Amino acid sequence: MREYTPLTITDAVLEQMAETPDARMKEVMEAAVRHLHAFAREVNLTPTEWIKGIEFMTKVGQACTPARQEFILLSDTMGLSALVNIMHDKTKVEEATSASLLGPFFRENTPKFATGAQIAKKPDGAEVVMYGRIANAQGAPIPNAQVTVWQTAADGRYDIQNGIEEIDCRGIFQADDKGNYLLRTVRPLGYFIPLDGPVGQMVMSQKRHGMRPAHIHFLISAPGYRELVTALYLAGDAHLDDDVVFGASADLVAHVKDGDPACPIKGLPSIQFDFNLARESEADRRAGRVGADPAAVTASDGKNTTPYGAPPPEMAAAAVAAAEPKKSGGIFSGLFRSR
Amino acid sequence: MREYTPLTITDAVLEQMAETPDARMKEVMEAAVRHLHAFAREVNLTPTEWIKGIEFMTKVGQACTPARQEFILLSDTMGLSALVNIMHDKTKVEEATSASLLGPFFRENTPKFATGAQIAKKPDGAEVVMYGRIANAQGAPIPNAQVTVWQTAADGRYDIQNGIEEIDCRGIFQADDKGNYLLRTVRPLGYFIPLDGPVGQMVMSQKRHGMRPAHIHFLISAPGYRELVTALYLAGDAHLDDDVVFGASADLVAHVKDGDPACPIKGLPSIQFDFNLARESEADRRAGRVGADPAAVTASDGKNTTPYGAPPPEMAAAAVAAAEPKKSGGIFSGLFRSR
Repeated sequence: MREYTPLTITDAVLEQMAETPDARMKEVMEAAVRHLHAFAREVNLTPTEWIKGIEFMTKVGQACTPARQEFILLSDTMGLSALVNIMHDKTKVEEATSASLLGPFFRENTPKFATGAQIAKKPDGAEVVMYGRIANAQGAPIPNAQVTVWQTAADGRYDIQNGIEEIDCRGIFQADDKGNYLLRTVRPLGYFIPLDGPVGQMVMSQKRHGMRPAHIHFLISAPGYRELVTALYLAGDAHLDDDVVFGASADLVAHVKDGDPACPIKGLPSIQFDFNLARESEADRRAGRVGADPAAVTASDGKNTTPYGAPPPEMAAAAVAAAEPKKSGGIFSGLFRSR
Repeated sequence: MREYTPLTITDAVLEQMAETPDARMKEVMEAAVRHLHAFAREVNLTPTEWIKGIEFMTKVGQACTPARQEFILLSDTMGLSALVNIMHDKTKVEEATSASLLGPFFRENTPKFATGAQIAKKPDGAEVVMYGRIANAQGAPIPNAQVTVWQTAADGRYDIQNGIEEIDCRGIFQADDKGNYLLRTVRPLGYFIPLDGPVGQMVMSQKRHGMRPAHIHFLISAPGYRELVTALYLAGDAHLDDDVVFGASADLVAHVKDGDPACPIKGLPSIQFDFNLARESEADRRAGRVGADPAAVTASDGKNTTPYGAPPPEMAAAAVAAAEPKKSGGIFSGLFRSR
C-alpha cells in the first residue's frame, strides 16, 4: 500500500486522472494539479492558511449573482484575465487593434441605437462624441460592422451595479456602408472596482488603490472577422500605468478633443478612433471571450442583485486627492470630473 | 506607458502587490500569482477555457451551504488537502500516529457519549466495538483525552448529507485515566463522495470511481499535545490504494476481528487501535486543521441544506460489481456490506 510524500502525492493525483477521455481536459487539469501543488509546497501552506483560502473562495462564489461576477473580478485583479487576453490576442492571423478586457460589467441585454444617438440617459453636461472607422488589417473599410459600447454612467458606476433591471450607458450601433461609426456618450470616469466583496477585501489588504483608469468598452464584430473585444482609455488618466486589472495599454489611449473640425457632430468634445479587425481564422470561431455577462454565468435564483461596489469613503477621498487635475490642461483625470 | 507580454504581465501584478503589509500574505499571494500565470502559460489557456473555469469555480462556490463544503471537496479531490496534511504532519516535534483528512463532513455540533456507548441511532446488526489506548510518543498513557469520532451511517451516508438538522453516527468520548477509550459504532461503508455537484461532475468526467475506502474519522485532543486529526481505514477495502481524496495510508489500516479476547465488550466484532499523540509545539497552537465544519465556513442564509450526494445509479452498480467480497474471508469490502 502506498505512502505519500509531499512530492509523490502529486504523482498519485495525476495517475488517478490519467484516464480522462477528453485529452485537452486531461492536459489542463494535470497542469492545474502540478502548479497548485508546487504553489502549496513552495509556500509550505499551513492548515490555517488552507482553510482561509477555502473560506475566501467560498465567499467569492457566494458573492456571485446574475448582476455580479466576483470570480471574474478575482481573475482580473490577479492579472489572469489580462494574461489570457494577451495570449489570445497573439493568435490573430493579421495585425489589428489590440484587445482589452471584457470585464465583469458586460451584459447581453443591450439596446440598439441609431447612428449618432446618446447612450446615457442623463448626459448631464458631460457629452462626448465618438466617431471613427472600422477597417480591415489592410485599412479597407468594413461595411456595417456591429459596434457595442458600454461604460460608467455620470456617477462612475455601471448600470448593473445599481440592479439587474437598470440599463444605461450601453448600446449597440451599426457602422455605415463605408465603415464609419458615430455615437454620443458621456466622458467615462475612472472608478473603483467593487470593493465591498471578498476581492475588494483582498485588494485593500494588499494596499492597492483599487482603481481602473477611465475607459469605454467596445465589442466590434463583422462577418468574416475576429470579434474585437477592446476598450479605449482616456489620455491623462492617473491610473493608465497601474490599472488594478491590468487592462490599459498605450495603443488604446484615446484623446478627448474640443472643436475637432472633422467630427460629424459639432459643438461637443469628441474622440476619434479607428478600429482594425483581423480576418477570422477557424480557431477564432471557438476562442470565446475573456469575460461574460454575469447572468450567463450565474443563473438567477432570486438572490441579492441590489446595488453594490460603493468604495469605502476613505479610499474615495484618497482617490480624489490623487486625481488632482494635471497642469497640462483640461483632460479628465481620475475619479471625478475635472470640470 | 507599459505594454504587457505574457511574461511581463506577471511582474506587473507582483509589483502592484508589493506594498502588502502582511509579509506572509505577500509571500503566499506572490507565489499564487506566479504559479497561476505559469499554469495559464503552460497550457496556453484560451478565453473559452478560462470562462469554463470561471463558471466551474462559481458553481463550486454556489454549491456551498452550511451542510456542504464543495471547495473542501475540490481541494480533497485535487490532492491539495492531502498535500497540506502531509506537510503539516511532518512538522510534529515527535513521532506519533499519522494524520489523515478531516474532510467535508466534520461538524462542531456533536453529542457527548458515555464510555462504551453506541453512536449509531440504528446499529442495524452491524455493530462494531472500538477500543484502544491514547498514549504519548514514548508510549506512556495520556489520561482523559477527548476522542471525537464520526463516520457514515448504515446506509453509507453522513448525517449532514440528509440535512443540517440530522445528527447521527458521531460522538465525543473521554478516555479514562489510564488512556483507554471504548465505544461502539457500526461498520463504516466505503462511499461515493458527493457526485451531484460540480466537483462530482469533474470527477466523473475524469473517469474516476469517486469512492473513498470505508473509514472512521477521529479527532483526539489532550492538553499539551498536538491535536490529532486522523481516520482508520478498514483492511481489505478495494479502494485503500486509490482513495478519491488520497486520505488512506498503510499505518492507518485497522482490522475488524471476531472474538477478540482482549475486547472489553464481548460478542461483537471489534477494532483495536492505539493512538499516539505528539507533544504540542508553539507552532501547533496556530496550525489549524485541514478541514472545518461547513457551517463555520458558509453562514446559513436559509439556502438549500436538503439531502445531497446520492451517486448516479450506474456508478453505484459499478461499485457493487467491483466490491465483490474477497475470498480471504469476511472482511468488509467496498460500498455495501458483505453480509
